[in-house]
Amino acid sequence: MGALRLPSLTSIFAVSSGRSSLFLRRSNQLHVRKLTTTTKLFAQTTPATEVAPPESNQKPLAQEQGITPRSQDFNAWYLDVISQAELADYGPVRGTMVIRPYGYAIWEAIQDYLNIKFKETGHSNMYFPQFIPYSFIEKEASHVEGFSPELALVTVGGGKELEEKLVVRPTSETIVNHMFTQWIHSYRDLPLMINQWANVTRWEMRTKPFIRTLEFLWQEGHTAHATLEEAEKEAMQMIDVYTKFSYEEAAIPVIPGRKSRVETFAGADRTYTIEAMMGDCKALQAGTSHNLGQNFSRAFGTQFADENGQRQHVWQTSWAISTRFIGGIIMTHGDDAGLMLPPRLASVQVVIVPIWKKGNEKKEVLDAAVSIKDVLHTAGIKVKLDDSDQRTPGWKFNFWEMKGVPLRIEIGPRDVSSGSVVVSRRDIPGKPGKVFGISMEPSVLIPYVKEKLEEIQLSLLDKAKSFRDSNIVDVKSYDELKEAISQGKWARGPWVGSDEDELKVKEETGATIRCFPFEQPQGPNKCLMTGNPADEVAIFAKSY
Amino acid sequence: MGALRLPSLTSIFAVSSGRSSLFLRRSNQLHVRKLTTTTKLFAQTTPATEVAPPESNQKPLAQEQGITPRSQDFNAWYLDVISQAELADYGPVRGTMVIRPYGYAIWEAIQDYLNIKFKETGHSNMYFPQFIPYSFIEKEASHVEGFSPELALVTVGGGKELEEKLVVRPTSETIVNHMFTQWIHSYRDLPLMINQWANVTRWEMRTKPFIRTLEFLWQEGHTAHATLEEAEKEAMQMIDVYTKFSYEEAAIPVIPGRKSRVETFAGADRTYTIEAMMGDCKALQAGTSHNLGQNFSRAFGTQFADENGQRQHVWQTSWAISTRFIGGIIMTHGDDAGLMLPPRLASVQVVIVPIWKKGNEKKEVLDAAVSIKDVLHTAGIKVKLDDSDQRTPGWKFNFWEMKGVPLRIEIGPRDVSSGSVVVSRRDIPGKPGKVFGISMEPSVLIPYVKEKLEEIQLSLLDKAKSFRDSNIVDVKSYDELKEAISQGKWARGPWVGSDEDELKVKEETGATIRCFPFEQPQGPNKCLMTGNPADEVAIFAKSY
Repeated sequence: MGALRLPSLTSIFAVSSGRSSLFLRRSNQLHVRKLTTTTKLFAQTTPATEVAPPESNQKPLAQEQGITPRSQDFNAWYLDVISQAELADYGPVRGTMVIRPYGYAIWEAIQDYLNIKFKETGHSNMYFPQFIPYSFIEKEASHVEGFSPELALVTVGGGKELEEKLVVRPTSETIVNHMFTQWIHSYRDLPLMINQWANVTRWEMRTKPFIRTLEFLWQEGHTAHATLEEAEKEAMQMIDVYTKFSYEEAAIPVIPGRKSRVETFAGADRTYTIEAMMGDCKALQAGTSHNLGQNFSRAFGTQFADENGQRQHVWQTSWAISTRFIGGIIMTHGDDAGLMLPPRLASVQVVIVPIWKKGNEKKEVLDAAVSIKDVLHTAGIKVKLDDSDQRTPGWKFNFWEMKGVPLRIEIGPRDVSSGSVVVSRRDIPGKPGKVFGISMEPSVLIPYVKEKLEEIQLSLLDKAKSFRDSNIVDVKSYDELKEAISQGKWARGPWVGSDEDELKVKEETGATIRCFPFEQPQGPNKCLMTGNPADEVAIFAKSY
Repeated sequence: MGALRLPSLTSIFAVSSGRSSLFLRRSNQLHVRKLTTTTKLFAQTTPATEVAPPESNQKPLAQEQGITPRSQDFNAWYLDVISQAELADYGPVRGTMVIRPYGYAIWEAIQDYLNIKFKETGHSNMYFPQFIPYSFIEKEASHVEGFSPELALVTVGGGKELEEKLVVRPTSETIVNHMFTQWIHSYRDLPLMINQWANVTRWEMRTKPFIRTLEFLWQEGHTAHATLEEAEKEAMQMIDVYTKFSYEEAAIPVIPGRKSRVETFAGADRTYTIEAMMGDCKALQAGTSHNLGQNFSRAFGTQFADENGQRQHVWQTSWAISTRFIGGIIMTHGDDAGLMLPPRLASVQVVIVPIWKKGNEKKEVLDAAVSIKDVLHTAGIKVKLDDSDQRTPGWKFNFWEMKGVPLRIEIGPRDVSSGSVVVSRRDIPGKPGKVFGISMEPSVLIPYVKEKLEEIQLSLLDKAKSFRDSNIVDVKSYDELKEAISQGKWARGPWVGSDEDELKVKEETGATIRCFPFEQPQGPNKCLMTGNPADEVAIFAKSY
């Protein structure tokens, strides 16, 4: 429920929308002709594997293809990467998004990991209808206040005006509680722990692909428990699942913590969050887990008979991660050359680019490339062979770098003779990331590739951690906070301010409390705003 | 696009809706007290493993729980099974359905299988927005005619009346084509082959859980090709994938074939279908694959430059299987005792029911049961141990039979001593399906269980095949057709009748042409209606 709306995004979005993929595709086609330098390089007698990577010889392809440098305009860069790497496109309805196969594959990788974790922690998948009677939304007071400005309403069905308008689900707490009342009777029915993968609709005015769209995909977990303690434990468990996922799979060093009252979910007692620092230092709320207390169970009458036969309201949680997370991956790891995917979430972990000069070399090079592909595929590595005739090797190098593929294997005629290949890392540009003469022997190549993928995975996390830590400033006063925020950094400082104090910070600096991190410094402190004794530090930042 | 609406379903649905799961749950609770016979049996000194199955001693639990006998009222039986086996519940909005974990697990098994097949055949998953501008639907003439009576419209978003009303997707051909125009430029971009797993909305007036609901889940494949031949090959390939799935996974002997013009999808040149015979002999259209020709590409201007640089409209297909298929599984295999799941789609393939009489037996029985569970689980078998204290073994036997679990393993103190278990098949009721003294040794038990599961899988298919074949009548005249349909059977006969002839049959008998099956008899024939020479036989039946 991002309360902060960035005022400038609408116009940016509109501009970028004009630069359609048709336009970009044309510029790709033009580019093929421009790439004469690279083409020539590969037509020379220089051994293919010793040819310097195109990026060191010429202007990176990415920019020629229309990717704005990240440092120049972070937002334009972000939109360019999404378009060029074919992650998503704009849908015909304002603010909607088509998730293309290469972007959807990231979502599938996220689903594969989380689905296992959810089931391991005792949750079952199911599916609730997306149409919710309008009256349901009104039952929980703060819920209706938070969501009513964002609703899409179905008013006509089968050619007729409906008696009660229907809400297209913005989230499912209300309909979940309606059903829970039918399934929960005694303490033996608890805990009830379910999850659904679904689309949700929120009528956002300022949209941005993946980050904030009218419709998005997510999972929403919903649980009911007999005690507050169990619900609290569950809410904490799920934010922990998200945190581990972020670190281990997405290589994003999120900061888990508790939301302030102002930023708590509409209908929750407590909201836990994972906050990620994007490449422009803005914060992204990347996942949330709510302790809903008895707010919904009281509104809907979701009760159970306890062991003494007493009727009690259940204690509930809900928690979600959405396709927004894909935006977080792009903005955490990407660079001027385009996307950079963490190996564990990449649908293509290794791309093989075969290189041949004369016609008679083609067969032996391709045969070797196919055999390497099969070897890696059998070893469980996600590998793609780009054997198209349409593009030069140089073009392919840049294209797959732009698509963020973690490792590239190059193989030319001389490599075939020597039984070795060249391996290039996406995360280390140019020669330093390139290793020659890796044996094609499966017993050598497979462990080498696996080790490199692990190295890249860890290296991306380390790099993001360093970046994050170097951009968090510990502040002791409001002046220091303002200074840090004006420099585009995150400010961390002791806080016991009121809701009004928090809103004042937001108004004056554009920053909000992202969270009270779980990891807290030792010792007594004074609130940076009020000077009162403060038990906790809060992190303030501008956010998406 | 089921053209046939069964007039009586609304009232039935309304009645069953009144019998809520709350009511049924209460009847379960009452039942525990009724089960004294079984309780006593297990309190006697008779060795537990020699106790006759409850079904042979008393009225089956299923009926006491409120499952109407199948033979008495097929529709009531169907709704009872869905409710009792906890497959689904009614949503708060008329005609919507909540798919509960046990039902959703079947859908997940369907997804797991098909997702692999779709990817093996070159398709990528992606996601299109569900909101479609109303003007899109109007672009393809027969499409708007087919779908406009069934649309749900969003007219209000973010508190404001929308300028253009939005259709909640009933299917995605229109928005797919809108996007394809941006992605397809030359023959090199073809074929373009994608799939999405999504929810769709059709404002049906007469609904029935799984079979026809306002919102349902499905996959929809969409492809674009350079030639008619390629599109035709794709449409046939996908109906073949569905056919194999039905036979091999769902044990449903569908009849694949071509739809008549009258029954062809709104916007397609040809529709292929798989038709399944339900337990009441009604036909269920269980999956379709459409050759769309150039209908949508002409309406949306989806063109490509061919190898000669000429602009051509692409040739397209679309194909879908939905949660309706779950209804097909229930109505193909279920019996008076409840659901019967084919082992390959069952989320629980084996249930272990431990049996103990005295307190000191409990530990050794449970230890053995846990160890058997671990052994089977490690062998990749989906196994559940029902170790609850709340229910008697007899209750559990009936409960898991009602839930359609293919195999049950019973283990009591005497079994522990002898190192063996009792194995009961769901598909063979009573003693004949029960085998005593199967060794607990993993080297014996694992292959035994796997073999039995395979046997059940094949046996369900064989049984459904025999049932199907004994209920298809070859007819030579309209009188014979009417006779067959009035007996509730399928009629198969030579047909070159007109659309009007077909509609006349529907009006007079309630039957429609389900398909012209791919498998055709040899030799010349005369149309059963017109007497003209007929190349093909058609299958007529009443349908869901």
